[in-house]
Amino acid sequence: MSLTIKLQLHSHLNINNKTNHANKLIKNNTLFYNTKFLPKPIFHNNPIIITKSKKVKRRMQESFMIKSSLIEPDGGVLVDLVVPENERDSKVVEAKSLPNVKLTKVDYEWVHVICEGWASPLKGFMRENEYLQSLHFNSFRLNDGSFVNMSLPIVLAIDDETKGRIGSSSNVGLIGPDGDCVAILRSIEIYKHNKEERIARTWGTTAPGLPYVEEVIAPSGNWLIGGDLEVLKPIKYNDGLDNYRLSPKQLREEFDRRKADAVFAFQLRNPVHNGHALLMNDTRQRLLDMGYKNPILLLHPLGGFTKVDDVPLDVRMEQHSKVLEDGVLDPETTIVAIFPSPMHYAGPTEVQWHAKARINAGANFYIVGRDPAGMGHPTEKRDLYDPDHGKKVLSMAPGLEKLNILPFRVAAYDTKVSKMAFFDPSRSKDFLFISGTKMRSYAKSGENPPEGFMCPSGWKVLVNYYESLQTEEASQQAVLSA
Amino acid sequence: MSLTIKLQLHSHLNINNKTNHANKLIKNNTLFYNTKFLPKPIFHNNPIIITKSKKVKRRMQESFMIKSSLIEPDGGVLVDLVVPENERDSKVVEAKSLPNVKLTKVDYEWVHVICEGWASPLKGFMRENEYLQSLHFNSFRLNDGSFVNMSLPIVLAIDDETKGRIGSSSNVGLIGPDGDCVAILRSIEIYKHNKEERIARTWGTTAPGLPYVEEVIAPSGNWLIGGDLEVLKPIKYNDGLDNYRLSPKQLREEFDRRKADAVFAFQLRNPVHNGHALLMNDTRQRLLDMGYKNPILLLHPLGGFTKVDDVPLDVRMEQHSKVLEDGVLDPETTIVAIFPSPMHYAGPTEVQWHAKARINAGANFYIVGRDPAGMGHPTEKRDLYDPDHGKKVLSMAPGLEKLNILPFRVAAYDTKVSKMAFFDPSRSKDFLFISGTKMRSYAKSGENPPEGFMCPSGWKVLVNYYESLQTEEASQQAVLSA
Repeated sequence: MSLTIKLQLHSHLNINNKTNHANKLIKNNTLFYNTKFLPKPIFHNNPIIITKSKKVKRRMQESFMIKSSLIEPDGGVLVDLVVPENERDSKVVEAKSLPNVKLTKVDYEWVHVICEGWASPLKGFMRENEYLQSLHFNSFRLNDGSFVNMSLPIVLAIDDETKGRIGSSSNVGLIGPDGDCVAILRSIEIYKHNKEERIARTWGTTAPGLPYVEEVIAPSGNWLIGGDLEVLKPIKYNDGLDNYRLSPKQLREEFDRRKADAVFAFQLRNPVHNGHALLMNDTRQRLLDMGYKNPILLLHPLGGFTKVDDVPLDVRMEQHSKVLEDGVLDPETTIVAIFPSPMHYAGPTEVQWHAKARINAGANFYIVGRDPAGMGHPTEKRDLYDPDHGKKVLSMAPGLEKLNILPFRVAAYDTKVSKMAFFDPSRSKDFLFISGTKMRSYAKSGENPPEGFMCPSGWKVLVNYYESLQTEEASQQAVLSA
Repeated sequence: MSLTIKLQLHSHLNINNKTNHANKLIKNNTLFYNTKFLPKPIFHNNPIIITKSKKVKRRMQESFMIKSSLIEPDGGVLVDLVVPENERDSKVVEAKSLPNVKLTKVDYEWVHVICEGWASPLKGFMRENEYLQSLHFNSFRLNDGSFVNMSLPIVLAIDDETKGRIGSSSNVGLIGPDGDCVAILRSIEIYKHNKEERIARTWGTTAPGLPYVEEVIAPSGNWLIGGDLEVLKPIKYNDGLDNYRLSPKQLREEFDRRKADAVFAFQLRNPVHNGHALLMNDTRQRLLDMGYKNPILLLHPLGGFTKVDDVPLDVRMEQHSKVLEDGVLDPETTIVAIFPSPMHYAGPTEVQWHAKARINAGANFYIVGRDPAGMGHPTEKRDLYDPDHGKKVLSMAPGLEKLNILPFRVAAYDTKVSKMAFFDPSRSKDFLFISGTKMRSYAKSGENPPEGFMCPSGWKVLVNYYESLQTEEASQQAVLSA
């Protein structure tokens, strides 16, 4: 399931490009969702229709409007938990005096995510009341009665020994994977880590073979520790990619600097092929047709934990650069940045997190495709999730009402014109769906995919990567057989 | 785990009977939640505290108030799906002309639940958009943007053969377990029944041995059929207990007739012992102390599917009658009625359903104890759920804000006074916790429990039941060995 470039048919998603109709609808700088010129979000309207007064009906209509202004962070204020530089030294001294908790690489990625406000209004690893709300309701209720989305438990696990060492201390120091003290967790609460329940409610399965479960949850301790986070200095990885790691605050500043009047986010963890590019360019054109003057694309590859057969981040970033250098995407209207979250592969539950985090980063449009954050079932020969559930759940999710969800159109290789094009069901035989497995087998064998599938310089990055893998494998085998 | 009379320690739940303080607080006919005279709902306040304006803070305080007026059904209107008598004949003719779906006993119980409005505003078996919201968010968003709670998927499963027979028909007739046509399901939608995902997200486990899963879900079909329900005549079971099956409408009328100014509901599926009675009587006294003039207890045993080792409904109803006849509970201020829902044993997910259904029945106070709707883990030696999660989740659940949650105090047998009393941790050695297993072993062996544990006439009902079981077993064994 690596390189999962999924290009399959959504026969019910039809886009009719009715520009005039669209233009009429953007008076007052608002747009209606259920218009014909965008793929119709199938379940955005609410399920139980109760006859209501005219006033309520008007409120209903208002709630279906697209807000064209850029978007407020969840909870109203973007969380920023990095301590000011002038307090740093004293906090480091304090942190070192506290009982400590060692972070794994993935824990450290979550510290990064939390401290920059991607999970706003969350201010630290979840305490039990937050954890339970996330697990049962995929959302938090704020004190004003409103909801923010929070679909993944963002938690820190500790083992019995660490719990014992912490004793009755109310604060702990967090030690990064390289041994540095990176943060303080304050007013802590320690509660049971029921892994089975967490896994079942997050993934909707407990089948063995879920990457995040096997690599992160299974080896982790039987306790969770929540509290308020204070991070001692900005999180860096020193891998040559830190410049791409723009925080939500930096992204918002960049959108302002570019005078964006719409930002559409594209989450990905795979190389960009020309089908993706078509989709992104088409989305931009549609936003222009709607009356936006300067829609900006946030091309936002996920930078945290991914499963072992996904293409590594550095290779993907190089591939994305080529796509921009080649002009497949326009650098003037595109921002490429890294989304620092680890990947759960938890389908409809996780896609909410992906969307919610982009609200905090300032994107007011979110593109969603087939089977977002999905994968094959680890033990059965089927997709783990219904490929349509991701976008349906996204359109219903509490706390995501203010985000405009743009369902994918399906692109495939059109053999008649030798390029990636939107799939036309009336001549389905002309289209070639190139699966991730197929693409990988091309790259491994050195064979080229059909011309027009991906820009040649981007393709070369992948070929080089798979060649290097094979060289590595061969040398490992040589060592083993020596 | 049958007869689970759970009497275990909640050391953090302390009730200080500060009547004067309480009386002060009920001016304006409202009560504050966080007062000292009620067990403190530990997580009713919200987890993420964000500094807000005074106006927002005032709104926050208002949202913590207890409403003392009786309660509106979810969605504003109590659903009633039984067709008027003058339309019945023509609807029966229509129903018989439609493709039919055979209902199991449990399906029939759900038809009962839906048609009387226990699940208001749900108007039929869930369509996919309702199912997904229930599964992921435990709630539905209404068209006015508000939420109602809906934690259990209320769905109807069909097999491939039935799906084939239905074809493209948009309505189907539902056939009851006794072969009668009982309802029409209109504007149907058929969608996949992913049992694994449903089980994992509902129970938080996929371990084998969950009673509802084994007996209801596992044998059911791979499709779900949703639609709007029209029930052809009131649901009856003709088991001598139909008089106890008061609909939410009838209960509301009865509360009005009795001029109740507070209704507190007690959900149970076990015999009532004197610890329960103490708790219910104490709750009534507290409501009187708060200023209510006529609090009415709704003693509300669950009447649908239960697991095989639970005490059957008819025996429980007889036992409850004895408790009232004996004056352990006051018939003047108690209504005993049957809650027709099947039991899932799904802990924190299910307790929300139990509470939500009682909102629709007109109860504005709901008593919740240790491990509500819980059971032992089917394959591990532990409770399936954290015993405290039920009341925590209940206090956080979207759509239940208007219901006043009353956490249990723990009662146990006080050997110093030879009766059931609230547990006093300062002299814990004086208390005897009589588990369900222990109680059952008393009843089976004909041994009496400590005096004062249960009223003698109620106890006799149980002894007779277990004796009849043993006679039955003996005669079955005689047949087998003959």
